[in-house]
Amino acid sequence: MTKNIPWTPNMSHSNPPTSNDPGFKAAYQEAKTGFDEGGVPIGACLVDKDGKILGQGHNMRVQKSSATLHAEISCFENAGRLPASAYRGATMYTTLSPCDMCTGACVMYKVARVVMGENNTFVGGDEYLRQRGIEVVNLKNAECEHLMKEFIKNHPEDWYEDIGEPEKAQQ
Amino acid sequence: MTKNIPWTPNMSHSNPPTSNDPGFKAAYQEAKTGFDEGGVPIGACLVDKDGKILGQGHNMRVQKSSATLHAEISCFENAGRLPASAYRGATMYTTLSPCDMCTGACVMYKVARVVMGENNTFVGGDEYLRQRGIEVVNLKNAECEHLMKEFIKNHPEDWYEDIGEPEKAQQ
Repeated sequence: MTKNIPWTPNMSHSNPPTSNDPGFKAAYQEAKTGFDEGGVPIGACLVDKDGKILGQGHNMRVQKSSATLHAEISCFENAGRLPASAYRGATMYTTLSPCDMCTGACVMYKVARVVMGENNTFVGGDEYLRQRGIEVVNLKNAECEHLMKEFIKNHPEDWYEDIGEPEKAQQ
Repeated sequence: MTKNIPWTPNMSHSNPPTSNDPGFKAAYQEAKTGFDEGGVPIGACLVDKDGKILGQGHNMRVQKSSATLHAEISCFENAGRLPASAYRGATMYTTLSPCDMCTGACVMYKVARVVMGENNTFVGGDEYLRQRGIEVVNLKNAECEHLMKEFIKNHPEDWYEDIGEPEKAQQ
């Protein structure tokens, strides 16, 4: 089943999205903050259909010994308890292709679009999001990829544990 | 793609699972605690392949104004940051069929089995879990269903907001 939600021009964030979108810039800044904290450098920012930032956050696995605070989950959590209507037409900006959990969160809240910095480091639920009617855009942003490369080079165990694939840290 | 992970008899929790499993009892107790707190009465408990409880929790949407602390997410979070190996062969007991987010968390951590109290109230990712190789068991537990019926009767908005379908509260 593949059904696309049409992207309507009355949505005020840029179409097509770019690395200059305020939502993407906020997500990238979150990733950099995570990197500086020694954490998995992935950031996210949720923007509503009118371009308003609803929340932002970054991966807190290392910082809080958290099993669930990936960037997108932190972002949804920081946005707080919102009426379901707040997510309609919304865009989740994230610096990396979302894992299965974060993909599921975007599906559950029915965001309209997921804009990712890159998916060279990791390919998560890109195809499943599309199957569930969510528009997916890959910005192929080199800075996001660079942050991840640096982190994985220095902390391979932390990264592969984060995505539930520890055996890959040995490769 | 449907591939089944075989359930091996050397796993010490009961096979087939029942409502008397310690993991299910803990999940149900969590749901009751949530009900008594005025929250969405869904509980979960994660049990490892040797029958040890790794963590448990309940839905905290109402109590903490949380957008992400569904029962299974609370449970994973309360279990803490674990090595990926801890989830191998594990069972996630939950009193209700898991939503897309919680389904994704189970997929991401590669638990072996999801045992749900019921799916009459709500059908979440049952089929997707199976497609991703996770065994799914429905205990068809009347007490779990009763807790949800009572909650939805008194707080329909809280429930349908929790699953991102507010329009159904009006039906």
